[in-house]
Amino acid sequence: MSFRFEPLRTDGLARRGRIHTTHGVIETPAFMAVGTQGTVKGLTPEQLECIGTQVVLGNTYHLTLRPGDETIAQLGGIHRFMNWRRPILTDSGGYQIYSLAANLKIDDHAAVFRSHLDGSLLELTPEKAIRIQENLGSDIAMCLDECPPATADVAAHREAVRRTILWAQRSKAAHRRPDQALFGIVQGSTDLDLRGQCAAALVSLDFPGYALGGFSVGESCQQMLAALSPCTALLPENKPRYLMGVGRPEDIVRAVGSGIDLFDCVLPTRNGRNANAFTAQGTLRLRNASHKRDSAPLESDCQCPTCRLHSRAYLHHLFLADEMLGPILLSLHNLAHYNQLMLNVRQAIDEGRFAAFAESALPGGK
Amino acid sequence: MSFRFEPLRTDGLARRGRIHTTHGVIETPAFMAVGTQGTVKGLTPEQLECIGTQVVLGNTYHLTLRPGDETIAQLGGIHRFMNWRRPILTDSGGYQIYSLAANLKIDDHAAVFRSHLDGSLLELTPEKAIRIQENLGSDIAMCLDECPPATADVAAHREAVRRTILWAQRSKAAHRRPDQALFGIVQGSTDLDLRGQCAAALVSLDFPGYALGGFSVGESCQQMLAALSPCTALLPENKPRYLMGVGRPEDIVRAVGSGIDLFDCVLPTRNGRNANAFTAQGTLRLRNASHKRDSAPLESDCQCPTCRLHSRAYLHHLFLADEMLGPILLSLHNLAHYNQLMLNVRQAIDEGRFAAFAESALPGGK
Repeated sequence: MSFRFEPLRTDGLARRGRIHTTHGVIETPAFMAVGTQGTVKGLTPEQLECIGTQVVLGNTYHLTLRPGDETIAQLGGIHRFMNWRRPILTDSGGYQIYSLAANLKIDDHAAVFRSHLDGSLLELTPEKAIRIQENLGSDIAMCLDECPPATADVAAHREAVRRTILWAQRSKAAHRRPDQALFGIVQGSTDLDLRGQCAAALVSLDFPGYALGGFSVGESCQQMLAALSPCTALLPENKPRYLMGVGRPEDIVRAVGSGIDLFDCVLPTRNGRNANAFTAQGTLRLRNASHKRDSAPLESDCQCPTCRLHSRAYLHHLFLADEMLGPILLSLHNLAHYNQLMLNVRQAIDEGRFAAFAESALPGGK
Repeated sequence: MSFRFEPLRTDGLARRGRIHTTHGVIETPAFMAVGTQGTVKGLTPEQLECIGTQVVLGNTYHLTLRPGDETIAQLGGIHRFMNWRRPILTDSGGYQIYSLAANLKIDDHAAVFRSHLDGSLLELTPEKAIRIQENLGSDIAMCLDECPPATADVAAHREAVRRTILWAQRSKAAHRRPDQALFGIVQGSTDLDLRGQCAAALVSLDFPGYALGGFSVGESCQQMLAALSPCTALLPENKPRYLMGVGRPEDIVRAVGSGIDLFDCVLPTRNGRNANAFTAQGTLRLRNASHKRDSAPLESDCQCPTCRLHSRAYLHHLFLADEMLGPILLSLHNLAHYNQLMLNVRQAIDEGRFAAFAESALPGGK
């Protein structure tokens, strides 16, 4: 088993660490670029490396439907398939089943649903989610869980926690691949009793890492942030902690302050495709006419290729002209912005000044 | 005037040369990547340089409508606007007026038409086409011409030649920018008498280069190829010759054999976006299911980033999943294929074996 978490130092609840995987090291806290269908939309692996991307997330649900996990296995695994040499984490497919698939029926045996692509009937069991991820060959795999929306009632959350624990046991029993780490997922919404039950059961299974699922699924941002520190307190200190699907830069900074190590979110790429740029001074809308003759880069001190080589005026033109290069260049900048944010976060923790950094980095700070 | 054509050697009618421009040298015969709206669709300038692209073509019609030639001038010109350091040729806008604009009315004074973007009424005179291209700041500008479809009758072609000559005189008189070369365009369809009249008039105006327009506009490929050598014979040997809008690799090889030096065509990028790859063995359709598990590159001996780093199976997946990276990687390969073709053409002429090269490179050859 090549997977190992190396805690480096703490600063308040914030943690600096290093995750060793089969495909190299992830310096934490880290942001994972979302590569849903085996590609981070619009970017080449070289471009991702060039901006310091450490780890890519692949979506088991999408990759299973197309091209199929067995096809990817025959082609040498997901790293070789997408030509990404650094670490890859795959989710279990659970979240997409709940958000994308139709006619979902779930019981203790399996989740049964219809593909959003062709309507075909599919069944996902915890064991099958493991087999798929072993076929994909990711460095970090996730247990199949049940993730109700935040608006579900307590009984539904209690049932989801019971089933998530049951499925975590079966996932762990089914998992074989020694070059892949399997993380457990803690559910329980914003109910700290349920989170506590779920975490205790999962910790007793001794996973090499733990995720907090069921956040960013409809609860308020305040509710999520209030629940984070109590939740991380339920998890062992010597294992990495992953907050799934979060989030905005300010959410990430706050979550690091609650002891989270790993993040993923579609925002940098999705906003990039929609002409919205992340900058240290806030969001810029590149379609806005104010950029039409602006020869300045998005951010004067950003070292990404987009900012080094192109003006706001050019980006504005590309989006108005519906040219592919607009989404490409802006996705590249936004991911670079997230990567730089995490670099700043890590340096602040290294230097024992995370609280001050967080205050200056958050909206209204500085 | 920094523009200069340096003839290097001939091999039959095929010519090796070197065009010196304000932004560097173009080794000829050369293919120009089409960058209609100030971007070669889907590719960064770095990617274009990396595959050996020598020169990019910009479309005056599109750039005038959006973002506007004065905006580009304010931003430092087209090179700086799109961050392309190497030579740029702009067309006059004529061809797009005939193919894209609505309600075209043309007389000796001007072409009047409606924008395909917003229906606004616009007027293009030879003088205005020059002023626009001087604002853009391309290295090579083109005279406004009249380009009827091949199906037009002889009277229409005769009238187009008369007006093209008149407008060439006015274009030359209007042109001021010393760092920009202005090429004349020979019209006349496949009527060699008309071509002869047009060429003689333009040659007497002593342009630094000449284009053959009015090909690839509806005539058969055989008709075009039969007309090429008679047309190039009408042009001075010490000036570059540009065959506008051509073409397929086999057309280019044959046209080089008729003494053409410059080419442009949307095929490599348009076919790339449509999942069709150019290879030395012919066209590959990447959506074809035969590629689903094929771990081989598009071409085993191609040195482009797509072929060095990605499999046919991955490209197939990207197109089926409607991912931007498919069009990106395939446009990159197709342009690299065209660039490599031109490199091979130049080497063959350098080594005095162009006829044998052309025979082996054409369909049915080898």
